[in-house]
Amino acid sequence: MKALDETDFAIVGLGLMGGSLALALRAGGACRRILGITRDPATRGRATAEGVVDEASADLALAAQADVIVLATPVRTIIRQLGQLGAIAREGAIILDMGSTKQEIVQAMEVLPPGVQPIGAHPMCGKETFGYGAADANLYRNAPFVLTPLARTLPDTVQFARRLAESVGARPLLLDAVRHDRIVAAISHLPYVLAATLMATAEQAARSDDLVFALAAGGMRDTSRLAASDVGMMMDILMTNRANVSALARAYAGRLTEIADWVEQGNETALHECLEAAAVQRRGLHV
Amino acid sequence: MKALDETDFAIVGLGLMGGSLALALRAGGACRRILGITRDPATRGRATAEGVVDEASADLALAAQADVIVLATPVRTIIRQLGQLGAIAREGAIILDMGSTKQEIVQAMEVLPPGVQPIGAHPMCGKETFGYGAADANLYRNAPFVLTPLARTLPDTVQFARRLAESVGARPLLLDAVRHDRIVAAISHLPYVLAATLMATAEQAARSDDLVFALAAGGMRDTSRLAASDVGMMMDILMTNRANVSALARAYAGRLTEIADWVEQGNETALHECLEAAAVQRRGLHV
Repeated sequence: MKALDETDFAIVGLGLMGGSLALALRAGGACRRILGITRDPATRGRATAEGVVDEASADLALAAQADVIVLATPVRTIIRQLGQLGAIAREGAIILDMGSTKQEIVQAMEVLPPGVQPIGAHPMCGKETFGYGAADANLYRNAPFVLTPLARTLPDTVQFARRLAESVGARPLLLDAVRHDRIVAAISHLPYVLAATLMATAEQAARSDDLVFALAAGGMRDTSRLAASDVGMMMDILMTNRANVSALARAYAGRLTEIADWVEQGNETALHECLEAAAVQRRGLHV
Repeated sequence: MKALDETDFAIVGLGLMGGSLALALRAGGACRRILGITRDPATRGRATAEGVVDEASADLALAAQADVIVLATPVRTIIRQLGQLGAIAREGAIILDMGSTKQEIVQAMEVLPPGVQPIGAHPMCGKETFGYGAADANLYRNAPFVLTPLARTLPDTVQFARRLAESVGARPLLLDAVRHDRIVAAISHLPYVLAATLMATAEQAARSDDLVFALAAGGMRDTSRLAASDVGMMMDILMTNRANVSALARAYAGRLTEIADWVEQGNETALHECLEAAAVQRRGLHV
């Protein structure tokens, strides 16, 4: 297994996740070269000028020069690029993605040629900001860095991915892709959908009263924050975790309807019990 | 109309709202005396020792000495205390409450004796923290300070309430109580119910996977923050705004179910349009 500082990385996508990885690797001296691949000419220019990447291109073919190819594009772009990388990646290259859903991605990794070493990853440090301008060398610090190896993934590859995660300050965690997708549906994808639905509901109320948004304060701000996320990225996430997200959203709607009944009927006992349990749970949540 | 610095205040309830008002009035030298009324002996001791109040008591009767009585207790306690204050308040006293719902409170104010001057208020700067320990002299700074005068409220009383709001850095805003309650249902009470429902739904998922809460990050943190609010206080709010809250929660559940359908069916056009509208709305929200 190569040492990190003898490794040439290609990072595909230089947004919040890919840009932050490049910055963190650079800051830690934890690689030899970084090749940046992005469609955006402004980001290519800026990342090169700032010395964050050694070379930049819009062409995925640049990844042929890398020992490790990191895919930091939206989930369905990752899946498409995995289909192209079979013909591009050099023998022995590690291909690691940082997509927010894992099942469909590891399925797409299965069909890569036997000479490359795929492993799924998901550093859990998303924000509602995005783009290279939001990148931050400390983004990964203390974040859980989920790794979803395939049956074909060699122990050395898993070990390399662990060291990569640790080199940017994250905490590696091995997880099955199916289990990962079920968990993130509850703690990430559902909260996003809820925030967007809150904006849609408030917008409806605001149509008949222009003070609705003018008076919005802290509670609205926090609860709706995720609705500002990049929609293209979130569409890919939702469309590759459809069963989990739709089932949870339905369970949520059912529970909310029950609560609406209690409020309407003045069923204080049931309502208090439910709200108190939620309060205890939330105060114990260490986030 | 008395000048603020010749006014004796009684503040009933020294939690986040009442405690912050006492601190802000004290810091600004914007009153003569502050009498603190609270059941909690520890808060009485601390507020007196720190010089935040000049005198403290558990007995509402202390309010008889005040020119202005501010009720900063939970909504249904305010309603109960309004029933007692008729026999306590001196002739000409102003009674102002800071409850988060206004319709039922101004109704209770209608039956006060003609010699006192009632006015509803709601400084919109709530937090999920609570108690005297969370009080902050700057809490009201730049916050909208809604005023809901009654038909019987004299112009001088409204003017006094305006100056009071301004003296603690807030922005007074006259509003009808019915309209107020409809607005806060959308921007405050619904978000609280949503946060609590998220905790309940995530807790259900966590029963079969102990990593659910362990992996929760920023998205979960923000969207669920309000669930940690004081449940007793929130029960009073929900129980005095039942029709608005239950109608909005139902509208929300209906919309969420529609979104769940789109996710399940892979209806990307409808889903994208809805999420994009929410993103635009949220990015334009200045909170």
